[in-house]
Amino acid sequence: MPHLTLEYTANLALAPAAALGAINAAAFDTGLFGEADIKSRAYCVDDFRIGIQPLARAFAHVRIALLGGRSPEERKALADAVLTALSATLQAPPGHELQLSVETVDLDRASYAKAVVRG
Amino acid sequence: MPHLTLEYTANLALAPAAALGAINAAAFDTGLFGEADIKSRAYCVDDFRIGIQPLARAFAHVRIALLGGRSPEERKALADAVLTALSATLQAPPGHELQLSVETVDLDRASYAKAVVRG
Amino acid sequence: MPHLTLEYTANLALAPAAALGAINAAAFDTGLFGEADIKSRAYCVDDFRIGIQPLARAFAHVRIALLGGRSPEERKALADAVLTALSATLQAPPGHELQLSVETVDLDRASYAKAVVRG
Repeated sequence: MPHLTLEYTANLALAPAAALGAINAAAFDTGLFGEADIKSRAYCVDDFRIGIQPLARAFAHVRIALLGGRSPEERKALADAVLTALSATLQAPPGHELQLSVETVDLDRASYAKAVVRG
Repeated sequence: MPHLTLEYTANLALAPAAALGAINAAAFDTGLFGEADIKSRAYCVDDFRIGIQPLARAFAHVRIALLGGRSPEERKALADAVLTALSATLQAPPGHELQLSVETVDLDRASYAKAVVRG
Repeated sequence: MPHLTLEYTANLALAPAAALGAINAAAFDTGLFGEADIKSRAYCVDDFRIGIQPLARAFAHVRIALLGGRSPEERKALADAVLTALSATLQAPPGHELQLSVETVDLDRASYAKAVVRG
């Protein structure tokens, strides 16, 4: 951990490598995590729907799953930093409303299982 | 929020635009959410396995992530409404058992970060 | 339930059918679940980033969502069994560090909605 998951709608001109680099750096700079532990992935969402009305909309969302024990202040600072980093890597398409959001969620520490294998 | 995520196995004749439209409408009709806040996406699952036995099976699952503070009754009514809407948009393939499910999960309100950008 | 989700980076020579078969069998062998209830899917992650440094890394992660009521010991035993099963189906690519992890998360039982349809 942490596991970061970026989802973004396909109408965004988002470069996933740049976005993931930015959010990993932001997560690392909080000082909460070991460097190699920050594992992120991006999913481009081709099929999406925002609201009910047929308006030009887009979203990008990051879910950060981390082992419990962080304070509410640390979690808020982490989410804010990742949101800021993500915002800097993309723009709303012309005429679109773009919603950006970041959530944090606790992983269950007692059952978390992990192994590292070297090839 | 809310964030809705539909996953469906590739052996289903599901039209994602229709399914997302139906579940967004069902979520909106609960009166719990602002119109533009309902953000849904669909993932078609090519690689899946249900159970152990080599039987003809399929699933479609919706995860609804919403900010805390809803009552258990509101969450149950929301999940039931989305399940009903989803059910109306697809059929089990001939000879298959189709499992449909909807879960709700609380987002951590204290750390949730959001921004809206207009292009 | 349970819902199992395997994510693996695209630089792994992982056969999803074999991996899902192995983790379903491991979950079933715990005796915690009905056979047909074990629903798993795999997502290959093309866009990922691990840490900050440009090192050769990979990950595979399983998220197990299950209805509440299992003991901490049952959840830990489940996660360990799935990790062992997953480990047996893949190797770290030459020169890479591969991180494997398994988490368990409770589904909200009160709002969980389900239906089974036969085609």
